[in-house]
Amino acid sequence: MIAEIIAAGSEMLTPYRQDTNSLYLTEQLNDLGVTVAFKTIVGDSLEHLTGAARIALSRADIVLFSGGLGPTEDDLTREAAATALGRELHRDPTLLTDLAKRFAARRMAMPENNLKQTDVIDGATILANANGSAPGQYIDTVVPNQDGNGVRKIVILLPGPPRELKGMFKDVVLPILAPNLPPRFLAKRTLRMGLIPESQVDARTAPIYKQFTDVETTILAGHAEIQLHFLCAKDTLAEAQARVEELSALVEQEMGDAIFSSGGESLEEIVLLHLGMRQLTLSTAESCTGGLLAERLTGIPNSSLTFAGGVVVYNQAMKTAFCGVPPELFATHGSISAEVARALAEGIRQRTSTSFGVGITGLAGPSGGTGLDADKPIGLIYIAVATPTGTQVKEIQIAGDRDRIRLWASQHALEMIRQTLI
Amino acid sequence: MIAEIIAAGSEMLTPYRQDTNSLYLTEQLNDLGVTVAFKTIVGDSLEHLTGAARIALSRADIVLFSGGLGPTEDDLTREAAATALGRELHRDPTLLTDLAKRFAARRMAMPENNLKQTDVIDGATILANANGSAPGQYIDTVVPNQDGNGVRKIVILLPGPPRELKGMFKDVVLPILAPNLPPRFLAKRTLRMGLIPESQVDARTAPIYKQFTDVETTILAGHAEIQLHFLCAKDTLAEAQARVEELSALVEQEMGDAIFSSGGESLEEIVLLHLGMRQLTLSTAESCTGGLLAERLTGIPNSSLTFAGGVVVYNQAMKTAFCGVPPELFATHGSISAEVARALAEGIRQRTSTSFGVGITGLAGPSGGTGLDADKPIGLIYIAVATPTGTQVKEIQIAGDRDRIRLWASQHALEMIRQTLI
Repeated sequence: MIAEIIAAGSEMLTPYRQDTNSLYLTEQLNDLGVTVAFKTIVGDSLEHLTGAARIALSRADIVLFSGGLGPTEDDLTREAAATALGRELHRDPTLLTDLAKRFAARRMAMPENNLKQTDVIDGATILANANGSAPGQYIDTVVPNQDGNGVRKIVILLPGPPRELKGMFKDVVLPILAPNLPPRFLAKRTLRMGLIPESQVDARTAPIYKQFTDVETTILAGHAEIQLHFLCAKDTLAEAQARVEELSALVEQEMGDAIFSSGGESLEEIVLLHLGMRQLTLSTAESCTGGLLAERLTGIPNSSLTFAGGVVVYNQAMKTAFCGVPPELFATHGSISAEVARALAEGIRQRTSTSFGVGITGLAGPSGGTGLDADKPIGLIYIAVATPTGTQVKEIQIAGDRDRIRLWASQHALEMIRQTLI
Repeated sequence: MIAEIIAAGSEMLTPYRQDTNSLYLTEQLNDLGVTVAFKTIVGDSLEHLTGAARIALSRADIVLFSGGLGPTEDDLTREAAATALGRELHRDPTLLTDLAKRFAARRMAMPENNLKQTDVIDGATILANANGSAPGQYIDTVVPNQDGNGVRKIVILLPGPPRELKGMFKDVVLPILAPNLPPRFLAKRTLRMGLIPESQVDARTAPIYKQFTDVETTILAGHAEIQLHFLCAKDTLAEAQARVEELSALVEQEMGDAIFSSGGESLEEIVLLHLGMRQLTLSTAESCTGGLLAERLTGIPNSSLTFAGGVVVYNQAMKTAFCGVPPELFATHGSISAEVARALAEGIRQRTSTSFGVGITGLAGPSGGTGLDADKPIGLIYIAVATPTGTQVKEIQIAGDRDRIRLWASQHALEMIRQTLI
């Protein structure tokens, strides 16, 4: 069965906003064995929305609407879906009573507009909204196709606010939808790799995953990492899992240590996990990444057990004051140097009494360095990892803008720590 | 004129990837006075893509495709657009020569597949791609509508990689498209506010902006801020600008200091600007935000002139070692206290010899505090700003998950600095 998701709302047709609900809905539908074949984003126009609903009914088995269920004149999904289905709307007496009670409880007069939220498409099941006032609607019906034969269509109206949509889908839609679809058993697995070109991952893994024609493989590159997603549907869960495991094991064998996680964890989670298992602690001294590495590490719950803290040392005086970098290093090598990276890592490690210390210095741009660093290229980064058994320093050159250089530098630092631990 | 953007690519129908090109294209089209009325996302299926192209031609004046111009069998946009337009494809000899030369220069044999990239829709203008191998295509034509009358349609095929798409649109499409559209003059303005509920902004500004029926106003809430976007189209630029200025001035008068920027700048940019103008410097001592504040400040180019650096002090020993927080404060008040926030701010200010020092301590969750902090609620944050004339401390309670609490805490800290400066 294929689905279409229609996101209704003019704000999603501006340069500022995107439909994000469809990512959640796609994940949920995929788990039910339903493929999303189309996504449409349409504004608050009855004509446009009705047209989009008609088109979706003609090309998809399941049509999900998100948004347009509020009380304002811009909320038109009920009308559009009813018209496209050739049905009428009726005012539901129970919803009407609920709404009146809600306003009475707050001692407020109910604006006329709000009555819209009690309009229900004839034959629809009302979906309770635990997190807001707009109820959803669910229609499972048979409509005639061009040849006059009947085709089954499921139409689901969901509210736009993500919290309301997710709650309603999980708690109310799934229990109705899942038993009404052909049973499917899916197994999934995600392998994550950092700092390796996508073309290389593809060249090395394609000969393997192409043999698994019953497993859907997706390669995604971005945010300084490569993800390999495997998805397999079978008649039993055991069969599906076995195929995904088999493929996954072969790819893990091929890519070896380049894979940092096979359970969905991020690189910072994995690094904290490796350190934690060995009861090691970590501190950071960042120049060009400006706190990004610390921010990534502390974004993980309970990171405080492993990560003691760090410093953002954005000028030479601070590098000396907080990490004891000898001022003569700046005079001899410049701030952007292997020597300063090493002094940062060793200095922060010593001053925080942690097992590991990381030092990062480099040029994130857009403006270049000064003094001894004047001729160094933007994107030049030095990373040092100080450990109880010595210090490793790495020079790397990263292409791109300030954000990209900072992200990749933090990724390289995490990867260096991980490589030290495995 | 209204436009539809069709993003072609099965990866955008997974839970992992979104179409982002359309945000850029929408901004560019809006600047030309073109409204985007529909966005469609469709997978790599010739049937689906051709159907989507036909629908778009029936409901939009301008149809832009992004993606599906590569050399693989999944790249089907050329075929789909040609079929929907009722035209043939021909192999372009110049493109063929260029492609052959490109492979020859790299001493590589050209795979048969690549010939697809030289297929051009009859009558199309070829759009050069400065950043990749897939050329774009541009068709400005008249097609019959249902009544048999001619309707003008502009069809534009663009490559999917954002860098290629943006370069091609700006350098090649705009010079053809802009002169072929009715002239429109647009003025835009964005007002940004932090830490104020959207309902309050709407209640106070709606009576003003609703009087300006010729200015399109959009209110967006998210990422701990509210944005008001104004857009006005007139026969002359002066007229459009005058209306936007008039509305903007009235709203600025109403909202006063709540507005942190009227030129599009972020809060961190504005804070650095205010500090820089007064030749003041800044340092940070972060506990629960874990470097996020430093990361936001250092994300701005040339922030090093104003931001000296900061510390991420994730345990008590580090708070004492790096900011001189007296250990008795932890014993008396706990780490999550106004007293510790003040000591962090004053300590980091003194040790870095900066004009301002900021201290943040709090509970970001999901696990709660220990010892004296055990009964304090998740989301409780103390922020202190130390200045040459004294220290201010604020207690706030933030709702939501770890990411939201950290983001809002950093926003409150920036807003406190800004309020001190205005």
